[in-house]
Parts: sequence; structure tokens; C-alpha cells
Amino acid sequence: MSPRPPLITLTTDFGTRDPYLGALRGALLTACPGAQLVDLGHELPPYDRLAGAYLLGAAAPWFPLGTVHLAVVDPGVGGPRRALALAAGGSLFVGPDNGLFTAIYDRLEVREIRAIDAGRLGLADAHPTFHGRDLFAPVAGHLAGGAALASVGPEVTDPVRLPLASPRRDGAHLLAAVLHVDRFGNVATNLTRATLAHCGVGDRVLGWPGRTGPLAVHATFSEAPPGEVFLLWGSSGYLEMALDQGSAAARLGLTAGEAVRFPIVG
Amino acid sequence: MSPRPPLITLTTDFGTRDPYLGALRGALLTACPGAQLVDLGHELPPYDRLAGAYLLGAAAPWFPLGTVHLAVVDPGVGGPRRALALAAGGSLFVGPDNGLFTAIYDRLEVREIRAIDAGRLGLADAHPTFHGRDLFAPVAGHLAGGAALASVGPEVTDPVRLPLASPRRDGAHLLAAVLHVDRFGNVATNLTRATLAHCGVGDRVLGWPGRTGPLAVHATFSEAPPGEVFLLWGSSGYLEMALDQGSAAARLGLTAGEAVRFPIVG
Amino acid sequence: MSPRPPLITLTTDFGTRDPYLGALRGALLTACPGAQLVDLGHELPPYDRLAGAYLLGAAAPWFPLGTVHLAVVDPGVGGPRRALALAAGGSLFVGPDNGLFTAIYDRLEVREIRAIDAGRLGLADAHPTFHGRDLFAPVAGHLAGGAALASVGPEVTDPVRLPLASPRRDGAHLLAAVLHVDRFGNVATNLTRATLAHCGVGDRVLGWPGRTGPLAVHATFSEAPPGEVFLLWGSSGYLEMALDQGSAAARLGLTAGEAVRFPIVG
Repeated sequence: MSPRPPLITLTTDFGTRDPYLGALRGALLTACPGAQLVDLGHELPPYDRLAGAYLLGAAAPWFPLGTVHLAVVDPGVGGPRRALALAAGGSLFVGPDNGLFTAIYDRLEVREIRAIDAGRLGLADAHPTFHGRDLFAPVAGHLAGGAALASVGPEVTDPVRLPLASPRRDGAHLLAAVLHVDRFGNVATNLTRATLAHCGVGDRVLGWPGRTGPLAVHATFSEAPPGEVFLLWGSSGYLEMALDQGSAAARLGLTAGEAVRFPIVG
Repeated sequence: MSPRPPLITLTTDFGTRDPYLGALRGALLTACPGAQLVDLGHELPPYDRLAGAYLLGAAAPWFPLGTVHLAVVDPGVGGPRRALALAAGGSLFVGPDNGLFTAIYDRLEVREIRAIDAGRLGLADAHPTFHGRDLFAPVAGHLAGGAALASVGPEVTDPVRLPLASPRRDGAHLLAAVLHVDRFGNVATNLTRATLAHCGVGDRVLGWPGRTGPLAVHATFSEAPPGEVFLLWGSSGYLEMALDQGSAAARLGLTAGEAVRFPIVG
Repeated sequence: MSPRPPLITLTTDFGTRDPYLGALRGALLTACPGAQLVDLGHELPPYDRLAGAYLLGAAAPWFPLGTVHLAVVDPGVGGPRRALALAAGGSLFVGPDNGLFTAIYDRLEVREIRAIDAGRLGLADAHPTFHGRDLFAPVAGHLAGGAALASVGPEVTDPVRLPLASPRRDGAHLLAAVLHVDRFGNVATNLTRATLAHCGVGDRVLGWPGRTGPLAVHATFSEAPPGEVFLLWGSSGYLEMALDQGSAAARLGLTAGEAVRFPIVG
């Protein structure tokens, strides 16, 4: 077995048509020669921190302990928003303090959060519109190379959070939201087993407007009746609305970020 | 020269906008730390095993011996379809038994095919909709780390095949099919030098409806007359219909999967 | 720290839906086992050498010294165009001689340019439509493995250049061009600090048709007034037209390659 190189993942809204992603990768490899770079995704809708938070929460926990996760969705670049480096779930995360790490805070055990002090690190002349390349990449490379988290700057106790996961019960309805619609048309809600229990509602009593009785819950696509929307505990831990070989999102007219109001019918 | 890490390629229909690809990569690196991950492609049309088979057949043979090729286009996930690991052409392949490896069976020498026994490998609690992450990735990592193919489960002699490469002669016509249309509009047929010879037809006698005389065969785009569809032996070994600086597919109205009926005019 | 593997970047117009990119990666790893492969981008518009030149110029300089940059945008493949390998800015570049390296010639110090002699290297039987896989990849791998640049073929002193960066003053106007429009709608012109100085014009006197007074120059998006197009020195060194949280390109109706005529109003 060859020695394991430092591992850095990349999550951005840069797309893959512009020079930004290449420059970011070059800056990472300059800061940490030999590091292994792995993409979580770069097609996040521009500026969409909710989509970034969902992607990080669903993908980052599958990486080995000690991975450095660099995430840049940064509409406030060059303004007063803080830059963060943090330790959670045995791994490290680097990016802007704008809610992008909400799912990490919610789903992993957070050990320590630091604000990056660009001046102390000799990075004060970062280009004001590209902190990914000039600030976050050098810090991620620094940490991937073994530097202590405390070396990047002072501790932070009030990181910005997005209202990602707060379903609630409203009488005969459960108020949830759509976190993500995937390329197959599956609709991930913000309902987890824990939040459902918190609302005192089981997964077998959720109905749908204009429909009698609860939506069925199935474990796989192949066991669902063709042509019928059903519920599924998705692989990321959220309750999903699905349709075998079809798009539940198109059928139901749902998109990411929308509120969803499930009638409680059981 | 640095030591060579284990090499794993990835082929999926996951797209690059969802968390699935990142989670898959994390699971691979957890199963085989330090492995080098290389993408063959993730933009296969959802559930399209024919497109996956074409991509694998055209790209996988260019990798070094000993590469592990992980492929996941898996509409039947969670159902009764078998999971396979197989040795062919000096490399290993891991994925569902649904025809995705048809071009590998057709074009490489197959040494051994095994059905993955999830229970024996301690992987029986894979999430029922994401065997890529929870079953195929651990098996691919296991093999990339040096485990014997026989360790994954019992031998298989009847893997599923797609009808990928069966052109035939029908009197004054050659019946072929479109395997792939590339981004430049080149149309790859299922005709190889071997299948043409099998049909007793040369590449210089193929005509086209509404056209007099055979389609010209050229070696390069630059030697073809501008504006005229011609035939070309493509870099993947299939006979292609092409148009210099234009889309042959658009000109001829052809898409992947379609039957093509060439008049034999020579 | 683990030993650093040879580093090769990839820039193509292959897209990510066809087998070409996977085959190219396989050929690189066959030629240089263990090399680290990093993408600059593969979504260049087909055959668009200007876009390729812009991407290389903006991203390649951020990589460590000694990186090999493979670039394939090659409408003339199989024809008489030369194949090049060159040393510039402490790194190596491999690809067709069609202007794709113009920004490298303009922005880095060029040490040596060589024409690839396929015969001498035993690569004369490259497939005539896929020199990326069969000619450029073996040469890039050869160089990444430590071979001398002079070994690939004879010296070249007249490489092909595109008219990438030649703004000029025309009386009361500055004649520039759009090099690139990014996914956020920012419009990169071909104006650098050096070319502006050469034209004897500062960045604070550029106006816009139908508008009174000069366009404002801001350092960041967050300091620009909402809804107003402004100028910004972009992270790649070019003067850009930008709009906070919006598309300057859509607002102004500009696309890559277009001429831009700035009234000089100061």
C-alpha cells in the first residue's frame, strides 16, 4: 500500500466552464504539494448556500477522518463576512461564514471553530473577489499539511446558520421544506427520523393534498407500484418523495427551497 | 518516480449536481485510503445502460493493467438483480449485472465473473437505494487494495448482455444501429471491421437514402470535403458518420439507440 | 509529507459525456503511472481556441513549477498543423500549434518550444482523429516522467498566435474585446493594466454608450451599488464589467469574442 497523501475535497458554485476551478486547484497544490483533490461538486446554483450546505452534509461524512473539506459559495466575498476553519466529526472544514456549514453543525460533532486571520497568515493581499484561490485554498493546504487549527485565528462561538432543518407540526399538518431535488427527480425534504419523532408524527401518516390516505413508504424503487409517488428514507437520511423511473418533483411541482405542507391523515 | 497508488475509475449516471458522487468517492477512499480516483463519466442519461456500456468499452481499455473500474447505472437497485465483480483484459470491473458490462464482454478477454455476496462481505445493510456507495464502492476498494476476486462471492457464467453489437445484412441493406452521438455530432454505429467482414460488406459500398453512390470514407476531418457527410473509422473502433466542423447527427436526424439502414450500393 | 507525484493538468473541448476524456486519462496514466491528473476544464465550446487560451492563461500559472499542462482543442487534427511541447514560466505545455497557447506566450516567460516528431517517438500510428489520446498524452506522460523537452523534436520559433490581447485607442474611444463571460455573467475584456497604460488611458475614464460619466471602478461586488454595472480588476488580471448578484453580460448584451468600444469620457 502506498502512503496516503493529504486529502482535500472541493465544493463550489464555480461551475466547470470558467478558469476559477483550475486556479483553485493550482493554489491548493501549491499550498500542499501532492495533496489528493476530490470533488464533491461545482454545479451548485450560483450563490446558493442552502444547496451547498445540503451537499456538504450528505457527502462529507463519507470521507476518511482527517479529510479537509474546502467549500466556497461566497456571495459576500470581499465584504465583512468572516472566513472560517473548523473541526467537526473528525475532519476539517474551510470556507466563508455564511451558513454553508449549517448541515455540518447539525449532523456532526463540532469540536472547534476558528475565524481565519488573513493578516496573521500573510494572506492579507488576497484578491478581493477570489478568496477561494487566495485565502481559503492556502488555509486548506496549510491544514492538510498538518498545521494546527488554532494557528489560523481566534475562536468563534456564533457561526452563521441557515434555517435548514426545522420542520414543525401545525395542527393537522406537518410543515416541512424541500432541501434538494436530485437529477432523477427525487424530492428530499428536511424531515429526518429525529425531527419526525420530535414533531410526534410517524412516516406512515403523511398524506398529500387531493389524495385519500397516507403516502406509502417503500424501501426501494423496485417495490413501489409504477406511476405512484411514494415516500422513501433516502440515502442521506432525509425522507424523500419518489416515483419509480420518473420524476416526483415534476409530478408534484416541487423545487428546492419550497415549503411543503403534509396533511396528517393517520 | 513515486510509488503507484491503486487506481479506480468511476462511471455513473449520477450527474455532478447531487451529493451521490461525492459520497461514492468518500466511500471508495474510506475502503481504500490513498487510491487514485479517475472519472470516465457521470453524465450518462439516467438509467441508460447502453450508454454506460459504450463508455466503458471505449475508455476502460486505455487504462493500465490492474485498474479497478467501478460502474453504477442501476435502475434495479434494491431489487433482485445480481451485483458483479469480474476480471477482463487484465483489469477488474465492479457493478450491477444489468448489461452495463456488455462491451467489456464483447471486446476484452473475460477471465472470471463473480456475484457479490453482500452477507459474506459484511455489507448486507447497504442502503437499498444506494448500492454504489454502500456495496460497490467497498467491494471496488477491497479489490483495489489487493483482495482476490474469488473472495467476493460465487462464480457467474450467465451475465446479462445488451444487444449492443449485432449488425446484419438484409438483402440490399445493412442493418446497423447508432451506439452513440458525441458532442461534436459524430454518429458512432455498431459496425466494426469484424462485424462488417462478418456481413460480407466493405466500408466503401454503404450508401444513404436519397443519395447516389456510396458515402466516402476519409481518415480525418480535414481531408473531407466541407459540408458533406462522410464515413470515418472512429477512435473507438466503430464506423462513424461525420461532418467536418458540423453535426452529422443533426444533418441526418439520428440519435443514440436508433436503427440505421444503409443501402448497399457497391 | 508523502512524495509528490508528477502533476499533469488537462484542458480540452471534449465535454464530459463522451468516452474521449476517459480514454485520454487512461492514456496519460499508461504513459506515466501514478501521475496526478487535475482538470482545468473540458467544457470549452467545441473547437474554440480563444476560450482555451483564456482558460490556460488564467489557471495554469497557479500550479506548482514543473507541472505539465496538456491542452487539446484541435479542429485541425490529422491535418498539417504542428504538435508542440514547450517550456514557459517554469512549467511545460503540450498540445496543437493553433494558437491555444497564445496567453501562455503573452503572460509567461517562454524558454523553449519544440515540434513533436511523432516518428522519432514511435507515435506515428496515432489515430488520425484522436491525437489527444495517441500523441499528446504519451508526450505529456513522457515529459511528466522526467524526459528532456529537447527529446520530443526540433525547435520552433514561430508558433501560431491568436489576436488575444491587442486593445487600441481610436481617438475618443478605446477599442477592446470580450475574452470571456463567466457563469456569473462577469465580462472579462482584454484590457490589462499594461495594455491600458500602453493606450495612455486610465481605468477611471471609460464610459458606456448612452451613459453619462465614467463607469465606476470597485474592488468588490459588495461595495458596488446594487443594480449598476461597474468595472472591476478581475482575479485573472483583466478589466471586467460586473453587476452585483446579476449578469453584466445579459444587461449589456455581450458575449465572448465580441469587440467592445468604450467611449473615453474623462
